[in-house]
Amino acid sequence: MGIGDAIRRALSSWTKKEGPHGDIVLGTRVRLARNSKDVPFPGASSKEQLQSVLDQARSFPDVLKDEGSFVFYDMAEMDALDRDMLVEKHLISPNHARHTFHRGVILRSDEDISIMVNEEDHLRIQVLFPGLQLQQAWKHASRVDDCLESKFGYAFDKERGYLTACPTNVGTGMRASVMLHLPALARVNRLREVLGTVSQFGLVVRGLYGEGSESYGNIYQLSNQVTLGHREEEMIEHLERVTKQIIQSERQAREYLSQPERRLAVEDTVYRAFGVLSFARILSTEEAMQLLSDVRLGMDLGFIHHLDKEILKELMVMIRAAHLQKIMGQNLPPEERDKLRASLVREKLNPQALKKS
Amino acid sequence: MGIGDAIRRALSSWTKKEGPHGDIVLGTRVRLARNSKDVPFPGASSKEQLQSVLDQARSFPDVLKDEGSFVFYDMAEMDALDRDMLVEKHLISPNHARHTFHRGVILRSDEDISIMVNEEDHLRIQVLFPGLQLQQAWKHASRVDDCLESKFGYAFDKERGYLTACPTNVGTGMRASVMLHLPALARVNRLREVLGTVSQFGLVVRGLYGEGSESYGNIYQLSNQVTLGHREEEMIEHLERVTKQIIQSERQAREYLSQPERRLAVEDTVYRAFGVLSFARILSTEEAMQLLSDVRLGMDLGFIHHLDKEILKELMVMIRAAHLQKIMGQNLPPEERDKLRASLVREKLNPQALKKS
Repeated sequence: MGIGDAIRRALSSWTKKEGPHGDIVLGTRVRLARNSKDVPFPGASSKEQLQSVLDQARSFPDVLKDEGSFVFYDMAEMDALDRDMLVEKHLISPNHARHTFHRGVILRSDEDISIMVNEEDHLRIQVLFPGLQLQQAWKHASRVDDCLESKFGYAFDKERGYLTACPTNVGTGMRASVMLHLPALARVNRLREVLGTVSQFGLVVRGLYGEGSESYGNIYQLSNQVTLGHREEEMIEHLERVTKQIIQSERQAREYLSQPERRLAVEDTVYRAFGVLSFARILSTEEAMQLLSDVRLGMDLGFIHHLDKEILKELMVMIRAAHLQKIMGQNLPPEERDKLRASLVREKLNPQALKKS
Repeated sequence: MGIGDAIRRALSSWTKKEGPHGDIVLGTRVRLARNSKDVPFPGASSKEQLQSVLDQARSFPDVLKDEGSFVFYDMAEMDALDRDMLVEKHLISPNHARHTFHRGVILRSDEDISIMVNEEDHLRIQVLFPGLQLQQAWKHASRVDDCLESKFGYAFDKERGYLTACPTNVGTGMRASVMLHLPALARVNRLREVLGTVSQFGLVVRGLYGEGSESYGNIYQLSNQVTLGHREEEMIEHLERVTKQIIQSERQAREYLSQPERRLAVEDTVYRAFGVLSFARILSTEEAMQLLSDVRLGMDLGFIHHLDKEILKELMVMIRAAHLQKIMGQNLPPEERDKLRASLVREKLNPQALKKS
């Protein structure tokens, strides 16, 4: 089986659409960790056992046909660049892209739903929606979960709930998260204060690409830490409540930056970022992300018009290394990537399209 | 007498035209210090004596009528902004703009020739030409000098030559200088090495606005240190020889920067500068000068087309504080100037006019 259109397509639907509170919440993710009751966790099972899980998973697109059009891919048959692209699109984990043997992924055609097979757990069901849509994402994940449960036979314990390879996932097996763009809080130096308190509420903050990754472009991922002792709905509601508080803080900071006495300095940053993005010949990922963050803030504050908001979200994914290499159809050394990144951004942000102001 | 068109006009002809070696030599200046034999130097003379010199000078436009159309201005009747503009156009010294009593200036309509009256010396004749034109500038200065000598009666000593208020000018009374734009030498870190040697040749290097001024935008002024013991023609030839060596070094550095392996990094700097100049909302003089220098280098190296070279030279004068205030017709606080500077530059460097590349 070759690599389907779903992978070749540069962008998932969640990056192209703007959801509720989309000026601050780029996306919502809910993932469920599930394991078979008949087979040891992937880290402890034999090749044959892993293969049996993978073979079962081949039938999932059929099992899930009421939930949309799904396709199964064997990771071992996918080339490295395609795998890295799926990571950059947030559809699989970096770990899943590196270790491919007896692993698979099932993607819905719009890429809103993906299922990793034989990652840390046998199944990782993920729903990824634009904007703040925790309830909806949870509902979709739950429906997919119900379909697979009827077929797969989950490892479940009445006391502890769903059993998972890592004890931090035991219970609901659910990790719900929101991807937040917080440029105004960063600019007024309130990020630490606002995000520092979330651990008290059983939540955790990470950079854009999950655990251990730095934050580029003022994008942070907020998710539940605890999976045990609460119902999924409670956790979702709790995460939503805290997210809305952060949204409010970010809105206050944006309001503050829009005041006449501060507006010019912010406009200056925003337009300089636009100028550099529009003309630079060399751009690192880190710098490009920061500049895109500045420009996006400018659009959200109404300083920059005539520029499609989704371009920024698209670019934040497209400027990643694997995406660039996919566009060129070959592996590129870092300096070539920086050059290609700059030319791609330049092409997208045509300054001619900018309203004169 | 009001302020004439010559002052209201934003730019002198030397900044608008491009002379020989104009990609590196922005302009050539020759000035002669002269004093009356009948009156003590300005610093030592009475009000009445200064007034008598000033009154004599009122007739100079008539004396010089074969050399072009000259107009006399009394500095005390000129407002502060107009005086500062003349400084920024390099037509009078900062000192002459600050102390106006019994002082005057005579300007040729194209502003290539100016004569300060009662500055440090009774007369300071200045010729300012675009590009490298030392011989021509000297010839013009000499012709004006001859006209005035016949009328004024210079303080002259057979042994020491022309007598001047400051001993460093005694002899020829001549200071010849060239204004050099050396962005490539700056970029390859060879400025100190190349300019450091000129003092051995009796020459001196200064920033754009003469003694004690910093260098903005990689612009340096090279002039003769010695006025005694050499004929004017010898000094001019000597300065020209050294200037041509510096030109050659700058050309080598530009050649070096144009090599395929370095070209991209230079292009990146040049286009970023263009991007920031085209979109920034706040620009200090210092930053604007550096960015204009980068863009000008990009034009000289053939990276940027469809942009008038003289725009850069114009902007380097126009972004100065007094020019900005003149444009607005009022005194402005620094933050307003930074804002106006950015908007002026933006207007001039219309990115639409830039060839897509």
